[in-house]
Amino acid sequence: MQLPTDSQQLPDALRSRREQLAKLIDFPAILWSGGYRSRNFPANTYPFRASSHFLYFAGLPLENAVIRLEGGKMELFIDEPPPSYALWHGEMPKRETIAESIGADAAFPLAELASRVAGAATILIQDPITQTQQFQHLNRAVHPPKTATGIDLELIKAIIALRLSHDQAALTELRQAAKITVEAHKAGMAVTSKAKTEGEVRAEMEKVITSHNTVCSYNSIVTVHGQVLHHEKYFNPLQTGDLLLVDVGAETAMGWAADITRTWPVSGKFSSTQRDIYEVVLDAHDTCIEKMKPGVEYREIHLLAALKIAEGLVNLGILKGQPSDLVEQDAHALFFPHGIGHLLGLDVHDMEDLGDLAGYAEGRIRSERFGLGYLRLNRPLQAGMLVTIEPGFYQVPAILQDEENREKYQEVVNWEKLKQFADVRGIRIEDDVLITETGTEVLTANLPNQASQVEALVQSQ
Amino acid sequence: MQLPTDSQQLPDALRSRREQLAKLIDFPAILWSGGYRSRNFPANTYPFRASSHFLYFAGLPLENAVIRLEGGKMELFIDEPPPSYALWHGEMPKRETIAESIGADAAFPLAELASRVAGAATILIQDPITQTQQFQHLNRAVHPPKTATGIDLELIKAIIALRLSHDQAALTELRQAAKITVEAHKAGMAVTSKAKTEGEVRAEMEKVITSHNTVCSYNSIVTVHGQVLHHEKYFNPLQTGDLLLVDVGAETAMGWAADITRTWPVSGKFSSTQRDIYEVVLDAHDTCIEKMKPGVEYREIHLLAALKIAEGLVNLGILKGQPSDLVEQDAHALFFPHGIGHLLGLDVHDMEDLGDLAGYAEGRIRSERFGLGYLRLNRPLQAGMLVTIEPGFYQVPAILQDEENREKYQEVVNWEKLKQFADVRGIRIEDDVLITETGTEVLTANLPNQASQVEALVQSQ
Repeated sequence: MQLPTDSQQLPDALRSRREQLAKLIDFPAILWSGGYRSRNFPANTYPFRASSHFLYFAGLPLENAVIRLEGGKMELFIDEPPPSYALWHGEMPKRETIAESIGADAAFPLAELASRVAGAATILIQDPITQTQQFQHLNRAVHPPKTATGIDLELIKAIIALRLSHDQAALTELRQAAKITVEAHKAGMAVTSKAKTEGEVRAEMEKVITSHNTVCSYNSIVTVHGQVLHHEKYFNPLQTGDLLLVDVGAETAMGWAADITRTWPVSGKFSSTQRDIYEVVLDAHDTCIEKMKPGVEYREIHLLAALKIAEGLVNLGILKGQPSDLVEQDAHALFFPHGIGHLLGLDVHDMEDLGDLAGYAEGRIRSERFGLGYLRLNRPLQAGMLVTIEPGFYQVPAILQDEENREKYQEVVNWEKLKQFADVRGIRIEDDVLITETGTEVLTANLPNQASQVEALVQSQ
Repeated sequence: MQLPTDSQQLPDALRSRREQLAKLIDFPAILWSGGYRSRNFPANTYPFRASSHFLYFAGLPLENAVIRLEGGKMELFIDEPPPSYALWHGEMPKRETIAESIGADAAFPLAELASRVAGAATILIQDPITQTQQFQHLNRAVHPPKTATGIDLELIKAIIALRLSHDQAALTELRQAAKITVEAHKAGMAVTSKAKTEGEVRAEMEKVITSHNTVCSYNSIVTVHGQVLHHEKYFNPLQTGDLLLVDVGAETAMGWAADITRTWPVSGKFSSTQRDIYEVVLDAHDTCIEKMKPGVEYREIHLLAALKIAEGLVNLGILKGQPSDLVEQDAHALFFPHGIGHLLGLDVHDMEDLGDLAGYAEGRIRSERFGLGYLRLNRPLQAGMLVTIEPGFYQVPAILQDEENREKYQEVVNWEKLKQFADVRGIRIEDDVLITETGTEVLTANLPNQASQVEALVQSQ
């Protein structure tokens, strides 16, 4: 574990977070970091990822650690490794040193936690082995966040209230993640003309992320089959005429994420049909970002994207009718079947471990509508909130070949015209947008998204 | 999931394996593949790794799949995804298509498994969620392999007997893993003079592994602090005079691993002290491999390495006395505290999920001796067995500064002389050695390990 070099910035930020928490709850909160998960055998583990709620208050990815927060104070519970540890893993910082680096008010061995659990709330974490520790230490059931009640639910709501708006310490990390991700995308564009497969482009991009000692914040999507929305294989060859849809993001050592998608032509030149659709998607992207500011409903931004896409497809002759009518019929969702974006922070879908408790304002639930049901965020925007904006256009066989859809949208889609756009399997353009007091700041603005700029970067190697 | 293109090679190899199994056990065996593990939230998962025992018989990394083996027949149990799956993940091959590609004799939904569990043995897998499925389906406890009894233990022993000797299909994969790993190490050497940190060298090497659509078979070690044996951070700057110890390996899509270590000078030139120690380690490495053939005890190879290292350190004036006496006193272990190697196959420490059941011949247990206790393999070598040979020299503070050790080895170490070798923190040279009918074949022989060759590769960029 690498302790931070600047000794005061992190503790100050963490103290401020727990003081904010103390204003919202009047009971102790206990948060677990989690442990290593074994892969094929116990000593061969996946890279450790601490729970995001733990990271938010403890700052560092400590393994098998617990913090107890109460009244603005933090107690750290962590065991020091046995002497044999140093032989294999090197000297570990002492408990007191770790505690000091994160500004904990006291630090104890894990066994001491037993005496400090009374009346405490917690959040169930992902790792099943640590879940068992949670049950044992608290000596009670801990329900998944979706069904949490009582003080556990109160704690969840308080943490959501904090994590919805990023403080300066968080923004420093988020900017760093964005910067590295921009560099990775530029590297991917530059290597495309030399690459033979999707995997080679992915490798070049992840190399940038690895070289900065950051990790991927999610499994990369690097595919010429952009119509498969979550395509996580990289076997396909790159062929002239293909579009490469690339959704790759970095996560800093402290756990803060970025999330960028670009779509570029393998050849370095969009075909006219590809460029036509690209412009429709980019117009939706830009129009959404222009309208964003505190108080605006994210759902309205989603519907605005839908409208702009419908409008663009009408102009291209692919859809027929009034764009607003088409959106009401969910005709846009034939080609744009997902939400306009999501929260971004310590998780790439921030706080998605809490189900929709973070994404949806209290009292709101997911729509049943095809064109709204996949929306992950339905809240008014507020200053300090970081969201993605990621409109797209896809020709998903499971949607467009579906008989019910063919029937229902028989009249509004010009199926013949659509055939001319067969070389556009999937396009998405995604940026990370911070809501400011007066509007927005695009954290990923250093990565061009204009069609001609993207072409130039692909041609630049 | 990518189905193999050659339709008959895989099914034939798998059929042969289960026919071999049928000769060893007279009851059914049921093996689970395991599932995705969530990282920070359910949809953000670690890359899936199927259980190695499953992979050995089923060939493909199928998620949430189960196979039942009896009398040379294989039944596959796997659910087809819901229709909505195709929207997000693309079309999945049908159950029957998967079954055909692996040569299964029949295929069913998972629910059918309930009627096929009577009298069946299994092996507990790593993933706790799938463990619960094992208990539920079998309707009984399944103990960790170390404490398995009855037919579960019989199954474990039968699978060990098979997996100890690699068949041609396995060797094809293992050679591929070795080839990619060799390429990665060459890329790492070539980029070192341009790299500023350990992380940049690691990134270049893992790029090679990623670009071939393989993964790392374990968390890479790329460090100027080779004395920390399991160093998995990559923050240190590279400085002239440093040695970079690099232990990185690839794993094929079907799960077969390679494992190579090289140690090279950041400057492209070993200092005279570094070269002296390097030659001692390489001599141990080469001497061990020369002596290996079927029937030779791996423990003897370990002790031979210890002897060669002791001999070399006596010649350099670091140790004093007769080499064989020094090994009996475990004085070699002050500088070479780990075992000479381990089994290699589907796991980088092959079958280590079974504790020492695979590594240690029946009736043998780990030695209490400092110089032998870390030996992972204690069996006679046999044709088809793949092992690593990885002697090393390290100056581990936790060992050399330990007061008991200082006292015990006061007379046999020339502590003053040792100070002259301060620029040798850690050196390891590791290759993957296949036991043949008459001797050995080094699968990683294409990666040079002579000091001058390594220097040339570092200087080659």
